[in-house]
Amino acid sequence: MSSQKRIRDYGVKVGKLETGQYNSITDVEGVTVGHVTISDSGTQTGVTAILPHQGNMFKQKLIASTHVINGFGKTMGTIQINELGTLESPIILTNTLSIGTAANALIGYMLEHNPEIGRTTGTINPVVCECNDMLLNDVRARAVTHEHVIQALNSTSKQVEEGSVGAGTGMLCYSLKGGIGTSSRLMNMDHGTYTIGVLVLSNFGILSDLKVNGKAVGEELKASILESREEKDKGSIIMIVATDLPVTERQLNRIIKRTITGLSRTGSMITTGSGEVVIGFSTATKIPHEKTSVMSIPMIHEEDIDIAFRAIGEATEEAVLNSLVTATHVIGRDGNERPAFKDLLKQYDIKLT
Amino acid sequence: MSSQKRIRDYGVKVGKLETGQYNSITDVEGVTVGHVTISDSGTQTGVTAILPHQGNMFKQKLIASTHVINGFGKTMGTIQINELGTLESPIILTNTLSIGTAANALIGYMLEHNPEIGRTTGTINPVVCECNDMLLNDVRARAVTHEHVIQALNSTSKQVEEGSVGAGTGMLCYSLKGGIGTSSRLMNMDHGTYTIGVLVLSNFGILSDLKVNGKAVGEELKASILESREEKDKGSIIMIVATDLPVTERQLNRIIKRTITGLSRTGSMITTGSGEVVIGFSTATKIPHEKTSVMSIPMIHEEDIDIAFRAIGEATEEAVLNSLVTATHVIGRDGNERPAFKDLLKQYDIKLT
Amino acid sequence: MSSQKRIRDYGVKVGKLETGQYNSITDVEGVTVGHVTISDSGTQTGVTAILPHQGNMFKQKLIASTHVINGFGKTMGTIQINELGTLESPIILTNTLSIGTAANALIGYMLEHNPEIGRTTGTINPVVCECNDMLLNDVRARAVTHEHVIQALNSTSKQVEEGSVGAGTGMLCYSLKGGIGTSSRLMNMDHGTYTIGVLVLSNFGILSDLKVNGKAVGEELKASILESREEKDKGSIIMIVATDLPVTERQLNRIIKRTITGLSRTGSMITTGSGEVVIGFSTATKIPHEKTSVMSIPMIHEEDIDIAFRAIGEATEEAVLNSLVTATHVIGRDGNERPAFKDLLKQYDIKLT
Amino acid sequence: MSSQKRIRDYGVKVGKLETGQYNSITDVEGVTVGHVTISDSGTQTGVTAILPHQGNMFKQKLIASTHVINGFGKTMGTIQINELGTLESPIILTNTLSIGTAANALIGYMLEHNPEIGRTTGTINPVVCECNDMLLNDVRARAVTHEHVIQALNSTSKQVEEGSVGAGTGMLCYSLKGGIGTSSRLMNMDHGTYTIGVLVLSNFGILSDLKVNGKAVGEELKASILESREEKDKGSIIMIVATDLPVTERQLNRIIKRTITGLSRTGSMITTGSGEVVIGFSTATKIPHEKTSVMSIPMIHEEDIDIAFRAIGEATEEAVLNSLVTATHVIGRDGNERPAFKDLLKQYDIKLT
Repeated sequence: MSSQKRIRDYGVKVGKLETGQYNSITDVEGVTVGHVTISDSGTQTGVTAILPHQGNMFKQKLIASTHVINGFGKTMGTIQINELGTLESPIILTNTLSIGTAANALIGYMLEHNPEIGRTTGTINPVVCECNDMLLNDVRARAVTHEHVIQALNSTSKQVEEGSVGAGTGMLCYSLKGGIGTSSRLMNMDHGTYTIGVLVLSNFGILSDLKVNGKAVGEELKASILESREEKDKGSIIMIVATDLPVTERQLNRIIKRTITGLSRTGSMITTGSGEVVIGFSTATKIPHEKTSVMSIPMIHEEDIDIAFRAIGEATEEAVLNSLVTATHVIGRDGNERPAFKDLLKQYDIKLT
Repeated sequence: MSSQKRIRDYGVKVGKLETGQYNSITDVEGVTVGHVTISDSGTQTGVTAILPHQGNMFKQKLIASTHVINGFGKTMGTIQINELGTLESPIILTNTLSIGTAANALIGYMLEHNPEIGRTTGTINPVVCECNDMLLNDVRARAVTHEHVIQALNSTSKQVEEGSVGAGTGMLCYSLKGGIGTSSRLMNMDHGTYTIGVLVLSNFGILSDLKVNGKAVGEELKASILESREEKDKGSIIMIVATDLPVTERQLNRIIKRTITGLSRTGSMITTGSGEVVIGFSTATKIPHEKTSVMSIPMIHEEDIDIAFRAIGEATEEAVLNSLVTATHVIGRDGNERPAFKDLLKQYDIKLT
Repeated sequence: MSSQKRIRDYGVKVGKLETGQYNSITDVEGVTVGHVTISDSGTQTGVTAILPHQGNMFKQKLIASTHVINGFGKTMGTIQINELGTLESPIILTNTLSIGTAANALIGYMLEHNPEIGRTTGTINPVVCECNDMLLNDVRARAVTHEHVIQALNSTSKQVEEGSVGAGTGMLCYSLKGGIGTSSRLMNMDHGTYTIGVLVLSNFGILSDLKVNGKAVGEELKASILESREEKDKGSIIMIVATDLPVTERQLNRIIKRTITGLSRTGSMITTGSGEVVIGFSTATKIPHEKTSVMSIPMIHEEDIDIAFRAIGEATEEAVLNSLVTATHVIGRDGNERPAFKDLLKQYDIKLT
Repeated sequence: MSSQKRIRDYGVKVGKLETGQYNSITDVEGVTVGHVTISDSGTQTGVTAILPHQGNMFKQKLIASTHVINGFGKTMGTIQINELGTLESPIILTNTLSIGTAANALIGYMLEHNPEIGRTTGTINPVVCECNDMLLNDVRARAVTHEHVIQALNSTSKQVEEGSVGAGTGMLCYSLKGGIGTSSRLMNMDHGTYTIGVLVLSNFGILSDLKVNGKAVGEELKASILESREEKDKGSIIMIVATDLPVTERQLNRIIKRTITGLSRTGSMITTGSGEVVIGFSTATKIPHEKTSVMSIPMIHEEDIDIAFRAIGEATEEAVLNSLVTATHVIGRDGNERPAFKDLLKQYDIKLT
């Protein structure tokens, strides 16, 4: 990963399970992430792209599932994932008012890679998720272009920068600067060791609710800051879950629903204005676009699933904390700003453990 | 099957696909059905039991799914089927106010066959469905006993009697006598021929809405009868779907949702007071209760599924018509009665084709 | 309405209830519809816009609900409608690959009319629905522009042209030319007379399944045509439901689910590749964007709802038939063509009653 | 309330909002709770009854909603609540294998109070929830009788005993003794002060996961005990939510979904074998059984709802902790036992703050 100082570097160890090599969604074989950051005074926004595998997603679909924790959001593509249980495109994250642009660009990208779409086979289901970065970003300007989206898709790697980057550039978290965070866990089962990873785009919460591994750091920090700047939570969170565990879409849905345990432990109360959406996929099985004979789908026994429930909760909790602790101070639209958690920790000498 | 005259015996051929040998849910290998009929003046009710396979359902569960078309109903057991995607008990149909008794009896039956339940392993999810037969039956008397339920479970066979029998004894359909009906279809795919069957407990609709294979027989009959006895529809329908097609629970859910196309073609408008619930299972895969290593689940490609959609629509339409045309005239509680469709067809010389 | 010959002009009377004045979704006070048709050899597509009321939709939201019959589709905006129970934008219909463009244009339109969005209040949830017109239209060319969408929004009226217009320009229905159709019903209750209307974008079905008011016209026509051109159904249908009935979002959801009864009676078996999505709204209550004190929501008693269930089924059935019978012959991409139902009826002297 | 020492008596103050007078679900006007405890060596089980209001529930229904967090459970009655948005009976909690008996008894109770059921009007939807107490209780014996259920219904009051009582008699929580717990919160809005309360039947979790207001008490306790008795979590939790807030069923559903934030903060990871079901009702509006004209339903503006989200999270967290800290040591079936949390706190001198 990058040289950013992450939550574990502060001595905070979330949960009981081991992380993957990078402690990142990219610990799942084949997954890569790319960012385009647009940061220029009143424009603080960007694009993050996730490639679920390195082949042709349209021709080799993945078993996938979505879960809406709170639906004040505009995420596109969930209807088809729910019906067919498959993901057939990369996933794009951006700001709320740029979803049309992002969808259009992603459609263009898929058309280019698949000349048969709209000719000899059907159409493509683009998956675009969003949070609202209007405090720091001039969201009405819709600064994200077709080219930004393509650039994000073409610049993915296993190294995931976190914090105020990509779609996270203008996002907030617990009244501080938020953005991109990631984490992973290993799952030891009788039949092998599997990985699950999560990448979050955090943009929710008020300071006094923030808990770091159970510690009421938000209250402590708020008392230190001695100001009552705390505004109403209008935020959101997008969570992308990847795993190589062999699961059906029903099992995957059960797993991704448990993101909420980790999210809750950081202090979220899931406010009304929050678009909280999870999209998960498993790389264990590739479903061919073209009709085949009866397929044979590997599937864990339900009695094996609890470790995945634990793993996703832990990884989500840590990914949120990573998004918070890696984010840098940003001054944006109309001089609005949000401090960096790490700067405040130093300034007020707050301990996380 | 029994010697009852069914809708095909009237020259009505529903749809394009071939039926199974018995044109019954029992055409799916392993499925058997048993009835206990309680018919004694004001008591007109009963129990119908469906065994999804002939082994131990708790130890060898089946992939299953449920779909609620309209939820004015008290069906039990759907929450767990939805979560785990499996059925682990026979299915009992009875009248609305006897669901507690039926559940209790089914639990007892499962405990008897599985001494480890509640000792070394967890509990059992009993599946009980119901319709309200209060017009013809003294439903408040709750005439169904533990023994009736056990007797239904112990007397199943591949021969399914239809009409005013079992749970259908006191049910109505399109203002006439309704009850039990069944039908099946064969599905030819590249990789084999599969069977899907449906058994309905019909208890819904008003006469003037009845369509037989598109023909407005209900209006014609109503005009003949020259009386305005038509009451408000307060009915319900339970639909049990069995197939040997290798499907995941998601695919099975898609299939059983299409029961509504056949139901609609008979004239249903799905009234508010109607509990319309579908429970489906596939016998293609047995999921062991005891933990195993990674399993391999056979699953058709989605491009193969349309014939199953057609098949279940046709079978449902025909099963409803079979329930109607086989039912016999019943006089029940307080002298309330419902005529038999077949008697009226003869009396008023109505042609179905 | 326009001078187009509609299904009633052929003597076909669907159902028991009376229609509204125009027999159109625009019979619901405040609802208007606009089309932009793009028809130029290989480009056969367009945009249809529905304004749910004539005020500011963002400031005066409507109670709304969505229902996915089959989710092989890319409709946007349903997540937020489901969560909040309100619609806050017009509805745009177009072809599948133009949803990004349409969303972007609709966002721009809303930003223009609401300068506070993204500044002092949150964002906007654009609702865009689609079907795939790739057979007749060069869908990869994405011919729909920002201007087309704005033009459709700015040209709405109570006169709804049907058939091969707007988003329906390139759509198919039962292997014939399909597109836009509409119908309405009046609902007499003790406390007043209400209206419900539906507008469909039809793009589904194979010829031999087509039923006109129960009559197997599709089979008859297919036998007449003496050719086996019938291809695999890959279609979809979008259904927009408007009513002035005072209902909660739960009640509205129950009503819009019943579109399927009418759809089924025309012969649909709801194939796997079909995106079948319903979006409904009630104009009876306007929910202010700005926070208010406790509101008082008018709501019918559940015992009043059956007539709405009947009405929407009838209106949907008739709207599909209107879309079919008004559509004109279109030759499009690569010379692909689809005949007009009305031309075939004349050519082969088929009677609809 | 009773003289039991509750979590606040240990200095633990959960959250930011004030509690109601009793810090109990019965702080909501009209709500009463009754227990029947069956405790005799190997039989450790019981019944808990909740009366949502003191009138006739069938004739004056309440707006209600259900939410399944994890569906490995047998709760009855949710299908109809989901469809109609109303609750028309008291709620019974008991052990898993006694749901049939409880349903039967509750049906009998409703029939007795409503002679028109099954005669001049339809049937009744009994709501019965369960957890599995098989470790301490001989659950196969099905010790709960019809009379126990009626007794619980007839002995309700505003005083709610907690811990090892009623349905909670044999339940576990975080590997310790669990059972019944309750808590409430006040919600100050511009237009008044409202109350929300929750009652839990806790039966889930493993010791090392237990957090008390963020503090890892479970790990500390486990280290003290120096034994590795910790078994696999097979538990469940039932949560009953009452409020006098004027909400629609959609809004109520949003609120009750937030129980999970509090549940997660106690350490739950929502294991596969856990039946986690929430049933909520609002006493603000009574929906008459008999048909009326258009009703007027009071409903808060969505911008008011966040305090309810916070309140239910806090109350759920505290109710779980109350169930744990009030429970007493129980020795049951085959000498199986579970220690009381309060005894261990004393024995090992563990501080909760």
